[in-house]
Amino acid sequence: MQVSRRGAVDPFIVMDVMEQARAAEDAGRHIIHMEVGQPGTGAPSGALARLGEEMAGDPLGYSVALGIPALRARIARHYGEWYGVDLDPARVIVTAGASGAFLLSFTALFDAGARVGLGLPCYPSYRQILRALSLEPVHIRTRLQNGMQPVPAELEGLGLNGLLLASPNNPTGAMLDRDRLAEMAAACEARGIALISDEIYHGIGNAPVSALEVTDEVHVINSFSKYFSMTGWRVGWMVVPPDHVRLVERLAQNMFICPSHAAQRLALHAFDCPEELEANAAVYEANRAMMVEVLAAMGLGRIAPPDGAFYIYADVSAFTGDSLAFAGEILAEAGVAVTPGLDFDPEEGHRWMRFSYARATADIEEGLARLSAFFARRAAA
Amino acid sequence: MQVSRRGAVDPFIVMDVMEQARAAEDAGRHIIHMEVGQPGTGAPSGALARLGEEMAGDPLGYSVALGIPALRARIARHYGEWYGVDLDPARVIVTAGASGAFLLSFTALFDAGARVGLGLPCYPSYRQILRALSLEPVHIRTRLQNGMQPVPAELEGLGLNGLLLASPNNPTGAMLDRDRLAEMAAACEARGIALISDEIYHGIGNAPVSALEVTDEVHVINSFSKYFSMTGWRVGWMVVPPDHVRLVERLAQNMFICPSHAAQRLALHAFDCPEELEANAAVYEANRAMMVEVLAAMGLGRIAPPDGAFYIYADVSAFTGDSLAFAGEILAEAGVAVTPGLDFDPEEGHRWMRFSYARATADIEEGLARLSAFFARRAAA
Repeated sequence: MQVSRRGAVDPFIVMDVMEQARAAEDAGRHIIHMEVGQPGTGAPSGALARLGEEMAGDPLGYSVALGIPALRARIARHYGEWYGVDLDPARVIVTAGASGAFLLSFTALFDAGARVGLGLPCYPSYRQILRALSLEPVHIRTRLQNGMQPVPAELEGLGLNGLLLASPNNPTGAMLDRDRLAEMAAACEARGIALISDEIYHGIGNAPVSALEVTDEVHVINSFSKYFSMTGWRVGWMVVPPDHVRLVERLAQNMFICPSHAAQRLALHAFDCPEELEANAAVYEANRAMMVEVLAAMGLGRIAPPDGAFYIYADVSAFTGDSLAFAGEILAEAGVAVTPGLDFDPEEGHRWMRFSYARATADIEEGLARLSAFFARRAAA
Repeated sequence: MQVSRRGAVDPFIVMDVMEQARAAEDAGRHIIHMEVGQPGTGAPSGALARLGEEMAGDPLGYSVALGIPALRARIARHYGEWYGVDLDPARVIVTAGASGAFLLSFTALFDAGARVGLGLPCYPSYRQILRALSLEPVHIRTRLQNGMQPVPAELEGLGLNGLLLASPNNPTGAMLDRDRLAEMAAACEARGIALISDEIYHGIGNAPVSALEVTDEVHVINSFSKYFSMTGWRVGWMVVPPDHVRLVERLAQNMFICPSHAAQRLALHAFDCPEELEANAAVYEANRAMMVEVLAAMGLGRIAPPDGAFYIYADVSAFTGDSLAFAGEILAEAGVAVTPGLDFDPEEGHRWMRFSYARATADIEEGLARLSAFFARRAAA
């Protein structure tokens, strides 16, 4: 059988590193994981207990495509609590993770051949999903002097149909403040560019600004995977303009039927566990401060603004011109798995490295000690 | 913001009926549900209990994109047990329901503009997903004299890049036997048509034949929603040719990250609950026999071959030329929700009706009694 051209998306380069890490662990080595993009914690225990009870008494069949009404209402309330935004629950659509939301948003907004801008570096799946849907990712190089986020002037001459902004960004952690977000939203509206705002790391790092604070003409995408620590449950949400709800509903009915019913219940209950979630966030906060300080001391002081998410993106060009090989050396010599920048930035990523601080503080501490010794040896060599 | 043309998929016509049914129930009426495409039962209780234990001790984070190895191996073993097929677990890919499998299969196989054949009537989401992915659904009208499944000669002159076969079919229940499946697979291979075999109703109805019994050049799609009674958990699988695995894996990594981890565990445990699953299947079997007999007695004897799935698709043209309006009358007068054929067949569906027997036998019995009285009144009128 022939296969499609659009299906030929790039492999994840980081998989090689993860495979090496797994092999090292299988061989009995102790590896510190700074390559991972997920919390070490699970869903809040109070929420799990309530789902456990519900599972016994309810078949948890298909929900309606837009998600269970109580969860949509609770998410809308969340916008009041976190952002001071009065949001109609009818605009909230529960999805199969942020991944499901991207599939819905891209098909709802763009026809084959449309051009969608991405600030580079970025989450690699953006461009792969776009390609799989016959859309054209358009890279916009971000700059340290602009806080590693795009600026309006950079939209000129690209012929964009859409723009995806991520604040905090993965891999950089860089965020957009309210003024810059408003500026970008206005620039998109003036040029007829559909704006998609990826806000899945909100709640981890500095106080976030939602695109909904500055415009209703946006698809906001969020998830229960990061702040709510529910990666494997695959539940997220999107907020769309009122006149897009029916469109996305029909696509969701056909493309997904519904998001996982159990995951929706769990997400609803997770809102009732703020103590556990805030405790997780406090761990990330402590890890971040420690990592920024120690990385700078070891010669990795040129970093993207570490505003949020649980990543530091550091320029490693003083040590290597090949971040993939360098990650292999760090793993082999220091026993720390880190992520080369290449997946996030095919052009400049060979000079950058992503360090995740999503795991427990003791692990991050141990990992930083190992890295410090490694970089000291390199600096001396 | 502008929206796409490809996102403008058709609404589900049945939603109107379901909305009316809900309104009737809200008004205090008792409605029998023969419109539903899901079991009334939940996941096997033994499997739920085991998942409940695991939830307490495991964060259930992301799994690998292809699915947890134990589940892939167990699914492969299932092909030995049910079909006598020796299947390499490496070819099994766990997905976010059959819905997720369709998205992966269609993007892996077809570029924008490709033409994919569908035997009419069929599950409406096939054509809507195809359209959302910029693909062109090509209808192939099936005929009662051919058992409501396509025959090789009908592929001629359609310029097909792909063909989707469903056995048992939704809404008809019609199945393909081994010879006819082999014949269709050979016809596709000879014409360079990629074959996709939807087998999600296997295990409900007559002994099924998998396309894997007759060819390896196929994407087989299946699900834990029907036989395994796990609709709302959103977990299914696909089996692809060995040289397609890496391609689908990359797409899955980017488009889904992974299927729900909890759902994968539950699916694995569901294989250990054959008594409960076979008991469900026996209920469908009893319901089917009763429904075929009673529908015939009320004048609905012209039906598609009721081989499997949990549906009877009946010609209602002796009573109406407008199955949608007729469904409304049946709901209003008999208190039974049924599905007009229009969603499944935009051209001929106004003369057909789908009756589901997925619910408990007592409900089906009561529903058939109400329908008998209704049709007797109509016949007398």
